[in-house]
Amino acid sequence: MSTALLTDRYELTMIDAALRDGTAARPCVFELFARRLPGARRFGVVAGTGRLLQELREFRFGDDELRYLRDHAVVSAETLAFLEGYRFSGTIRGYREGELYFPGSPILTIEGTFAEAVVLETLALSILNHDSAVATAAARMSIAAGDRPLAEMGSRRAGERSAVAAARAAYIAGFGATSNLEAGRTWGIPTMGTAAHSFTLLHETEEQAFRSQIDALGVDTTLLIDTYDIHEGVATAIRVAGPELGGVRIDSGDLPTVAAAVRTQLDELGATGTKITVTSDLDEFAIAALAASPVDSYGVGTSVVTGSGAPTAGMVYKLVARQDSAGGWVAVAKASADKGSMGGRKAAFRTLARGTATSELIVVSDGFEQVETAAEHPDARALQVTLVDHGETDASYEGVGGVARAREHHAFVREELPITGLALSRSDPALPTVYEDA
Amino acid sequence: MSTALLTDRYELTMIDAALRDGTAARPCVFELFARRLPGARRFGVVAGTGRLLQELREFRFGDDELRYLRDHAVVSAETLAFLEGYRFSGTIRGYREGELYFPGSPILTIEGTFAEAVVLETLALSILNHDSAVATAAARMSIAAGDRPLAEMGSRRAGERSAVAAARAAYIAGFGATSNLEAGRTWGIPTMGTAAHSFTLLHETEEQAFRSQIDALGVDTTLLIDTYDIHEGVATAIRVAGPELGGVRIDSGDLPTVAAAVRTQLDELGATGTKITVTSDLDEFAIAALAASPVDSYGVGTSVVTGSGAPTAGMVYKLVARQDSAGGWVAVAKASADKGSMGGRKAAFRTLARGTATSELIVVSDGFEQVETAAEHPDARALQVTLVDHGETDASYEGVGGVARAREHHAFVREELPITGLALSRSDPALPTVYEDA
Repeated sequence: MSTALLTDRYELTMIDAALRDGTAARPCVFELFARRLPGARRFGVVAGTGRLLQELREFRFGDDELRYLRDHAVVSAETLAFLEGYRFSGTIRGYREGELYFPGSPILTIEGTFAEAVVLETLALSILNHDSAVATAAARMSIAAGDRPLAEMGSRRAGERSAVAAARAAYIAGFGATSNLEAGRTWGIPTMGTAAHSFTLLHETEEQAFRSQIDALGVDTTLLIDTYDIHEGVATAIRVAGPELGGVRIDSGDLPTVAAAVRTQLDELGATGTKITVTSDLDEFAIAALAASPVDSYGVGTSVVTGSGAPTAGMVYKLVARQDSAGGWVAVAKASADKGSMGGRKAAFRTLARGTATSELIVVSDGFEQVETAAEHPDARALQVTLVDHGETDASYEGVGGVARAREHHAFVREELPITGLALSRSDPALPTVYEDA
Repeated sequence: MSTALLTDRYELTMIDAALRDGTAARPCVFELFARRLPGARRFGVVAGTGRLLQELREFRFGDDELRYLRDHAVVSAETLAFLEGYRFSGTIRGYREGELYFPGSPILTIEGTFAEAVVLETLALSILNHDSAVATAAARMSIAAGDRPLAEMGSRRAGERSAVAAARAAYIAGFGATSNLEAGRTWGIPTMGTAAHSFTLLHETEEQAFRSQIDALGVDTTLLIDTYDIHEGVATAIRVAGPELGGVRIDSGDLPTVAAAVRTQLDELGATGTKITVTSDLDEFAIAALAASPVDSYGVGTSVVTGSGAPTAGMVYKLVARQDSAGGWVAVAKASADKGSMGGRKAAFRTLARGTATSELIVVSDGFEQVETAAEHPDARALQVTLVDHGETDASYEGVGGVARAREHHAFVREELPITGLALSRSDPALPTVYEDA
């Protein structure tokens, strides 16, 4: 399925005009970055990169796409011919998926002709903005949960394909499982889930429902105990399953109170190993508030898939450098004060002191050449890698392997955050962004 | 592409247990509804129905899907055999797409066996929750904009496939166009867009960029005038295009002030017919605040695709009635007080007085038979139609035609709202939900 029309019309009309005036082939550098962190958070988490690389492979204008553009007179015949042969042949460098980012971090740097790079604006932003918003919220929940496992179960509160991407982003940022089967199939994420209230209501009694579930899924299953009275539900669950019952799930009520009462009741019934999962309207703050409660794991729905108040990361895709008609490089930026962005090509480093991050160092150059200043910053970690090299994608960032790699990288870089970076409250970014001329 | 794994795992494990205990084939009634309107809004707008009907056609477990479920031991061999033959053969009645809804409105009623109906929970909710959230926000913006055209341009702030659905939902709720080309192709929505700041920055001067755009797109195009100084931008635009220029776009600054200054300048230059489009961080409140400003049209991005603060409609999918082992019907509902829902099958009517809606009347019955009370409510409009009849989908609600029909229906039903229903401020729903026994 072609991804080429997941594009704002103005990208094609710009190509149309640029092909006509001769600027379409000018070498350009575009940058994808965030001006600020939504929700006054301490850090953002990059996610979606692997998905973008895969969708870039499908970014082709086939017969159907060209027919639509021709029938609706979107662009000229010359532009249709250009699009028919379109393949991105440029280079994309960027932050690894799972990496942290801060205001101004050059998350992706796209080099190519104007025409081949400008046309990726919408697709790149759609994917990175959505997935990074979810991953950022998920990372905060993961910090709040500590060692307790988190499962993502918010598919029903997200568009049906975004739900799959959300499960993937949450997994990269520290969740351990998802309820979404397509996310399991496509991205290799462990899936979980046993029964809803409808299963209990389908049966004449709660006891019949529990018995049926145990017959099918074994005594290690998790029983949902709050369809009717929770105290009765727990008693019935242990009567049916015995004290070896794997777990109970609570989906309503004042969770600290209910969890404590259920734990006491389970222990009194000898079910000391039976785990408690809670799943009712949790976000990072509710999870943090349950830290002292006898809860074994969390299921999070709406808040993680909607970015917990920040459903988009707000990243932008801007031209930052181009060649002029004489072949020299020029740094460019929009002048409007309220939307200022920094022109020029950038290299990014995270400076560290004894293993703890101290700044987001961004070295700015007017030129096209890759800025290599790692040697001048021996304590800094270089943040950018080559994702696409002259049209050739590094497949190690794609697919199931790419997800595993991103999850591992995220866990690694989160350890570098200063302790203040772990706080959930609104504040400034955990690291200052420092600009330096090349 | 199969949609069958866009499903939470627990739906399949419930089927697994129900097939084993003999309850899987019990006739059931599920209902999709909202307990409340997010954001304390006056009404909600149903959207996504036509998409659901299309994705229901693709809800088949093929070899790839079955292999994944088998390899990961999600369900038993017996359940795999059931899924292999799965086709929804039940009946879905519901609100027309574009209809208004209120707390408790039975937006969809799904009748079928437990197994065939429970498995649609996630897909139905993913689509309706997302699309209705966008449509509800869009309707409020459309009310705020009055007769001025609205364009949706938020694709970059939504997952790449949700972006297409968002454009569709906004169009149903009153927007006139979208920037998203895939939405144009798939759903027949007019597309718009001319140029971004990068096009100006690509050129040595703003004048060169404007000249190039006019050469390609004609003097009727819209020029983006705020890359550098807005006053200079307007002067350059008219110098290059002449007073016949189609429009200018402003994407930054304090819009009431800037729009007034640009209008004055355009008029002084004789460009009295040149239109002004504004596109900077608009939501329904910002649009309302521009009512007295000389603005001709609005472009809305982030806020419409993210539901303007309510990114999900929060609808749920609940078992409300089932047959018992003796073949009689039983109304069922979860008891937990904080998540109470009303059991029983429901028929819904909007009562009217002299053309203005007065209540959402919901007639509740325990039984399976369709409640036919329209005759008893001669001033009421019946809200439910048959979307799928024993497995046969009514194709008139699908595709481009379905979108056009939904848009028309929305415009019609919005006229019935009492005047207080048009207010943007937080309040109670515009209509009370009234329950009546059949």
